[in-house]
Amino acid sequence: MKLATLKAGGRDGTLVVVSRDLVTCQAVPNIARTLQAALDDWDSIAPQLQQIYELLNQGMAADAVSFLDEECASPLPRAYQWADGSAYINHVELVRKARGAQVPPSFYQDPLMYQGGSDSFVGPRDPIAVLSEDWGVDLEAEVAVVTGDVPMGASPEQAAQAIRLVMLVNDVSLRNLIPKELEKGFGFFQSKPASAFSPVAVTPDELGDAWRDSKLCLPLQVTLNDAPFGRPNAGDDMSFSFAQLVAHAAMTRELAAGSIIGSGTVSNKQGGLHGSSIANGGVGYCCLAEVRMYETIEQGAPQTSFLRYGDTVRIEMLDGSGASIFGAIDQEVVHYHGAQK
Amino acid sequence: MKLATLKAGGRDGTLVVVSRDLVTCQAVPNIARTLQAALDDWDSIAPQLQQIYELLNQGMAADAVSFLDEECASPLPRAYQWADGSAYINHVELVRKARGAQVPPSFYQDPLMYQGGSDSFVGPRDPIAVLSEDWGVDLEAEVAVVTGDVPMGASPEQAAQAIRLVMLVNDVSLRNLIPKELEKGFGFFQSKPASAFSPVAVTPDELGDAWRDSKLCLPLQVTLNDAPFGRPNAGDDMSFSFAQLVAHAAMTRELAAGSIIGSGTVSNKQGGLHGSSIANGGVGYCCLAEVRMYETIEQGAPQTSFLRYGDTVRIEMLDGSGASIFGAIDQEVVHYHGAQK
Repeated sequence: MKLATLKAGGRDGTLVVVSRDLVTCQAVPNIARTLQAALDDWDSIAPQLQQIYELLNQGMAADAVSFLDEECASPLPRAYQWADGSAYINHVELVRKARGAQVPPSFYQDPLMYQGGSDSFVGPRDPIAVLSEDWGVDLEAEVAVVTGDVPMGASPEQAAQAIRLVMLVNDVSLRNLIPKELEKGFGFFQSKPASAFSPVAVTPDELGDAWRDSKLCLPLQVTLNDAPFGRPNAGDDMSFSFAQLVAHAAMTRELAAGSIIGSGTVSNKQGGLHGSSIANGGVGYCCLAEVRMYETIEQGAPQTSFLRYGDTVRIEMLDGSGASIFGAIDQEVVHYHGAQK
Repeated sequence: MKLATLKAGGRDGTLVVVSRDLVTCQAVPNIARTLQAALDDWDSIAPQLQQIYELLNQGMAADAVSFLDEECASPLPRAYQWADGSAYINHVELVRKARGAQVPPSFYQDPLMYQGGSDSFVGPRDPIAVLSEDWGVDLEAEVAVVTGDVPMGASPEQAAQAIRLVMLVNDVSLRNLIPKELEKGFGFFQSKPASAFSPVAVTPDELGDAWRDSKLCLPLQVTLNDAPFGRPNAGDDMSFSFAQLVAHAAMTRELAAGSIIGSGTVSNKQGGLHGSSIANGGVGYCCLAEVRMYETIEQGAPQTSFLRYGDTVRIEMLDGSGASIFGAIDQEVVHYHGAQK
């Protein structure tokens, strides 16, 4: 089943069920007005949404209208939790190698995870608005899941059962602010502005064979200024599955329905700078920092700049037949000029 | 005006207006069913709530019932943001001194702040449920504010105007998990389980002269196992006002209505271990870690243990006449045995 949230309807938008081909959608005010409301009472509401989904796919839904990515907020326009892991250790290994440090052995057993802000995500087609280019704006293309209620101390097996939805995310980072923030020891805080999620969130069953062992085994397609930039397979080199990440988040506390847990920047192990870009036959990157790390390792200093005003980032994922699964995140970097809403 | 949320009514509970003396309350389903709904549309809803508040205080409210702390959830049972500062630098100075380190000069200009989990706070009379005493359970008695919408880059003056409500919080920490978490560099994550907030949240005007320059200038009363443990003045030695903390949180992103920003553990500068406890004439402490830091500095090692199962923590604040302003947080440490709800 595929779900989205239209911006119309207030801070939480309007929940719609979306057809598999992303062509039509239908609001379901008599079932659930918002995605959070559906998640709050998932066991009774999901089967009703599934019925609408089947009607939509058959072209028989009573109130179907055209579905447009442009009208979407993030599936949860605001959420009660957004915690992001760093499950692709290759990314961490590159970070460390670029600064001449080792990856601590514990990093291979114990996931990195930070608590992100979740009070107001931007929509998948909204700009990345910042007050200064000097902050070092970077994309981070990732996969994320939305959970139901998870008890404290849940096992990975229990956590796997609590995964309700899967979506994509651009976890924007302000790279030039990160060193000072991390030095303070309290996490990324000011260096992580509002993230954007894919227009559509899908249930794991919708992914078929591509959802294996709580990993999404398909290439993530990242486009930078209309040129291919990354297509790493999100199922490769993921050191911790989503089941493990959710269990990690729940080790010392309950997670409430609607919690979003992210994978961290998708990153596949590759040879070196020359062969890693898509132009040179590699699978490319999901963030600019990674190119800069390769450049630092091989050339002594980064050459590629972070995002500038006017730069565009597109993130999506295609199924085996080339059809978009989640719709596309497509954002332009702009100067912030006051409230977006 | 004083507001609270009764547990009855689902995940977000039921908003009630509470009389100044905390004796009666009234639900306001025709104005706003939940506190978040009131915050989402504050300018139009607050005046209506204020009218009910005045009727309650005059004993003329039509549907007043008894108000009981025991029936309360945290004012926001779940929130879209909980970010906690560390505004009492004395606390940071003690931490550093105990491990023989200096406080970096920047800490006096740039607030420490971490992003906390906000998906499911526990109620003010709910237990502190943990899976192991070995986690090093500690209280942290603090003050927190709830904001309206705040634009990115807001000045402290703008931020001050966006403070809607003030409340108390017990920001429980798992001290023995903190070193390993901070070493990973991604923040406190697993070392911060669910916080509990005071039964009642109040508008700043309700605090009269005690709300000065966006600081709450009254002693915080902390009781541990029925004995006085702390009574530091929350207005003293606060290096960053709430206006500054909110502006810090908004530097690189908008804050949405209902964001909670905390002060960090309240801590007054005192002489040394002997004179700092209430029994010896000091103002005591708002967390056990602080006693242990004094012990480490003066005796080489901590003597006081963290909280054990059965220990109780009570946090409240009294006005000039000795009346409770926010009601009391009163929690017992217990072993977690499954979902609380």
